[in-house]
Amino acid sequence: MPDIQKAVQGLQSGADVQFLLVGAILVFAMHAGFAFLQAGTVRHKSQVNALCTVLAGFAISTVAYFFVGYAIAYGVAFFVRAEALNGGGKGFDPQGLSLVKFFFLAAVAAAVSAIVSGGIAERARLGSQCTAAALIAGLFYPVVEGVVWNRNFGLQESLFKGMLGEEFHDFAGSVVVHAVGGWIGFSAVRQLGPRLGRYDNGRAIAMPPSSVPWLALGAWLLCIGWFGFNAIGAHSLKSATGLIALNALMAMCGGIIAALIAGDGDPRFIHNGALAGLVAVCAGSDIMHPIGALFVGGVAGALFVHAFRKASDPKWNFDDVLGVWALHGLCGLWGGIACGIFGLKAFGGLGGVGFASQLVGSLMGAAYGALAGFVIYRTVDVLLGLRLGPDDERRGVDLAIHAITATPEEDVRMGRV
Amino acid sequence: MPDIQKAVQGLQSGADVQFLLVGAILVFAMHAGFAFLQAGTVRHKSQVNALCTVLAGFAISTVAYFFVGYAIAYGVAFFVRAEALNGGGKGFDPQGLSLVKFFFLAAVAAAVSAIVSGGIAERARLGSQCTAAALIAGLFYPVVEGVVWNRNFGLQESLFKGMLGEEFHDFAGSVVVHAVGGWIGFSAVRQLGPRLGRYDNGRAIAMPPSSVPWLALGAWLLCIGWFGFNAIGAHSLKSATGLIALNALMAMCGGIIAALIAGDGDPRFIHNGALAGLVAVCAGSDIMHPIGALFVGGVAGALFVHAFRKASDPKWNFDDVLGVWALHGLCGLWGGIACGIFGLKAFGGLGGVGFASQLVGSLMGAAYGALAGFVIYRTVDVLLGLRLGPDDERRGVDLAIHAITATPEEDVRMGRV
Amino acid sequence: MPDIQKAVQGLQSGADVQFLLVGAILVFAMHAGFAFLQAGTVRHKSQVNALCTVLAGFAISTVAYFFVGYAIAYGVAFFVRAEALNGGGKGFDPQGLSLVKFFFLAAVAAAVSAIVSGGIAERARLGSQCTAAALIAGLFYPVVEGVVWNRNFGLQESLFKGMLGEEFHDFAGSVVVHAVGGWIGFSAVRQLGPRLGRYDNGRAIAMPPSSVPWLALGAWLLCIGWFGFNAIGAHSLKSATGLIALNALMAMCGGIIAALIAGDGDPRFIHNGALAGLVAVCAGSDIMHPIGALFVGGVAGALFVHAFRKASDPKWNFDDVLGVWALHGLCGLWGGIACGIFGLKAFGGLGGVGFASQLVGSLMGAAYGALAGFVIYRTVDVLLGLRLGPDDERRGVDLAIHAITATPEEDVRMGRV
Repeated sequence: MPDIQKAVQGLQSGADVQFLLVGAILVFAMHAGFAFLQAGTVRHKSQVNALCTVLAGFAISTVAYFFVGYAIAYGVAFFVRAEALNGGGKGFDPQGLSLVKFFFLAAVAAAVSAIVSGGIAERARLGSQCTAAALIAGLFYPVVEGVVWNRNFGLQESLFKGMLGEEFHDFAGSVVVHAVGGWIGFSAVRQLGPRLGRYDNGRAIAMPPSSVPWLALGAWLLCIGWFGFNAIGAHSLKSATGLIALNALMAMCGGIIAALIAGDGDPRFIHNGALAGLVAVCAGSDIMHPIGALFVGGVAGALFVHAFRKASDPKWNFDDVLGVWALHGLCGLWGGIACGIFGLKAFGGLGGVGFASQLVGSLMGAAYGALAGFVIYRTVDVLLGLRLGPDDERRGVDLAIHAITATPEEDVRMGRV
Repeated sequence: MPDIQKAVQGLQSGADVQFLLVGAILVFAMHAGFAFLQAGTVRHKSQVNALCTVLAGFAISTVAYFFVGYAIAYGVAFFVRAEALNGGGKGFDPQGLSLVKFFFLAAVAAAVSAIVSGGIAERARLGSQCTAAALIAGLFYPVVEGVVWNRNFGLQESLFKGMLGEEFHDFAGSVVVHAVGGWIGFSAVRQLGPRLGRYDNGRAIAMPPSSVPWLALGAWLLCIGWFGFNAIGAHSLKSATGLIALNALMAMCGGIIAALIAGDGDPRFIHNGALAGLVAVCAGSDIMHPIGALFVGGVAGALFVHAFRKASDPKWNFDDVLGVWALHGLCGLWGGIACGIFGLKAFGGLGGVGFASQLVGSLMGAAYGALAGFVIYRTVDVLLGLRLGPDDERRGVDLAIHAITATPEEDVRMGRV
Repeated sequence: MPDIQKAVQGLQSGADVQFLLVGAILVFAMHAGFAFLQAGTVRHKSQVNALCTVLAGFAISTVAYFFVGYAIAYGVAFFVRAEALNGGGKGFDPQGLSLVKFFFLAAVAAAVSAIVSGGIAERARLGSQCTAAALIAGLFYPVVEGVVWNRNFGLQESLFKGMLGEEFHDFAGSVVVHAVGGWIGFSAVRQLGPRLGRYDNGRAIAMPPSSVPWLALGAWLLCIGWFGFNAIGAHSLKSATGLIALNALMAMCGGIIAALIAGDGDPRFIHNGALAGLVAVCAGSDIMHPIGALFVGGVAGALFVHAFRKASDPKWNFDDVLGVWALHGLCGLWGGIACGIFGLKAFGGLGGVGFASQLVGSLMGAAYGALAGFVIYRTVDVLLGLRLGPDDERRGVDLAIHAITATPEEDVRMGRV
């Protein structure tokens, strides 16, 4: 009898490790998506930098999160022997479940600076971007992550549950990851200013993407990885539910269809529309009805198209290359709020959320992101310099920083380099 | 004691959810494969449309299957509260297993119109393709799916088991998905006619692919996702067997090697040969011997090469851009029949299938596909117009529909747009 | 009671099948990574051949391993009926677990010739490469695999345990796969000689890569798949531990950061740095501390950069196109040895390894690889001819072997073909 109990427990923890590991690998794959979405959207002369920024940013974020950030968010540090880490040690689950959880959450944390890098592409210094990535994953992101997902500082209890009636619900990070990241990006883009030649005497000069296929590949990899991010989440096998996966699917479809209609067939809108739906569904994917999720995603797809167009108005002097403010900032905000509507039982959801909590929490997340972005990128700008010199920017960030172009053989042969 | 029983049951359903979810994500990833296989095979001026057609087609198929098709195939609708959907509700399994099953099957259903779109690429209207996708996933595909996999209308019992001795066996859809899709494609290609300039006075004018790397990426993504499609299938953990995975592997290798030999080193044949093997193994991957699977895949690889070449004979006036009729239509048909040979105990298989049932069922599937394709694309043509105007086709479907090319920056700089 | 026991056992074997299957699919996906890493690194005129060599090599390796190699390594052959294969048969686990294990290990075996092909790219014949792939996966690799992982010939017992104190530990193949593959590549590159025009009168003529994005995609796919290779390994669910996954993550990050610093921002170094860290962590990922893994990966990243530069010195007359000797040969060797340092309890590891065993075993692996490579490629060269004729090489291997270029539409239009 105890043998069976032990076998079942072993199976349980093994299965949990496996489940989370698949999720972590999928979230890691999203970073390939960030890299190629950015490489396809920027101009040819900035493709290499887009790829390198995302990969290097991932490494630096992960190390910062390992040594500092994870302790801030969850109070757990890794400075114990490997035996303790892998099971049996205080605060660590058997079979290293805690370590896979770290892997998963580190890949999520690294997504924040990957999001930001899409907004400030083509003109920022690599060293400064890496420094900002370390500050985000090591300090600024873990604070909000800990407040929402680990109930740090008792805000969930005192402010949300106590004063607004329900805890702030953000299942897979519409606000914690996307709104925060998108609004950090907002401040970073403002701090950096537009690319040279982007706005000229009140006119916007189009800077068309270098490659729709690479952009599309990035979007596909993000969508595929998202099902790990969303459907698996930082949770155990026991709480895995098909509802989450189905809601992500429906929201993605809603985003595609709405962006197809609103965006006049522009491939950038159709592919980013899928992402808009997925950003928005994160907060409430565990509690909404699939038809609610379809609607939430559809609104997000249309919202992205309209906000992206608005934000390109020369009067804002706002040059957000990939539209990360519209995509992550606004659609994340919408997702946090929408969870307080379509998660309600009245709208077919599972309930347990409140509109007031979602509204306040989402706005707080966005405001925190904007403020954190201002502090981080202003500091980095003052201390290290955020922007390339104008000559370097004109030659292109690839040649200036990496001394190579995206198609070196051809460029050497044609005498372009 | 009952606690343990409950724990084991919980583990069971959690593990089933996880297993199917991984499969569903992999099948979803196949759609990225469809998109890039098509983008690499068409001409440069049609790459954007290839990408958008597959992504938009996926979204529309999924929504049509959600609201209509799934009810036709399995008699299950989603118009109940989220609690019921996610477990406990009538007709729904715990932990939302039914919903993950839907995700898996929706991604399979959407593959049918993705298959067709490869045949009619470069000259069809987007709105008409979307309408056809909705009709396929919402109506025509679920009918055959339900007959074979849900025993609808009692055909399995009366016709196959009763008159031919065994049920029609199609484990992962050589016929239900591929032959049906390939023969719908056959009719769609005939309805649409060849691309302008493809055949001229009895001569075929080669229209070489735009990009072998993109074509290859598509093939790789399809192969990777196929192991989810085939090895996981719409089944529970209990029925997962290594035999299925090994058979898929061997058939793929057989297809590659045969196409390498038959195809004179042409990269299109080598990469599509892998797919040909995988198409053919679907029907019997759960019951064949691996050496049988190797042979079935090898025949499929050679069949694809020869049929693709034959179909390009100007006398047929048949312009199937990706060769979907040869790949899915013929190799799917072969796979359905081959399952009735190599699935037999006499050929080392597990048995339980009959040649007569497989022959009749496969031919019926192909005939149903050809007929359905005729009805769908003729109707859409008459009501909406299936084909672009000749001027638009000459400029290219990307500029005509999406007002952008695949490499907009370069094309704008070079004054090509 | 026995029912529960049976249910638990069924769950166990089902879960093991699933776990390994996911791992196998991920290792299979690494081959797409090999293909695109090579396609992006070679010149435009060799991209098609890079893609075809990896895909065809995979198929031929798998078949050779199925019919011969697996029996050499593990003493298991597949010439029994499908029922026996899939469970119940002598030497086969229930639910075909053995067959999924084969799938996993076949994809690992095929990696060896994929590694080699990156070194000898742009100038080798396809038929000769395929023959070499069959010899590697069918004969030379299984010998070393069997010695280390299946204790064949008693070397683990007599030499390592008996004379050096501990068994040779190589959890996921730093030596068995990578050092062996990298040193086979070393001999193959020497046998073949440099590309025409690569070294001229003591000067190295740079042959810049055709495409950084394709190179980057290859690296990303390899990294993603590596987590299946490393974190899942050929093991059961029971032995899955988060430590392995975390160590792979940390080593990869260490490799990226070190290569970023040592490599002056060169995107080839940054992306290959990730791979260098992953190569090195394989041997000890199950027993090192994550901080040890970070260090091991960092050393590997810097080692790759320096060795790659050194190896391009004209005096060596050594033209290893992708740097597979530096990446797999040297970083694999370092990984095998490092496991004997950072796996020790004194360095925070789990212990159970010895420095002497690791040093001797790693050097033996590298020497075996170099010798096997010499025998294989010398034999193939003498019997079949390894190298293209000079005219064919100048036109490019794509046109010479495949009669097509990577961008056929454009090349036909521009009259380049």
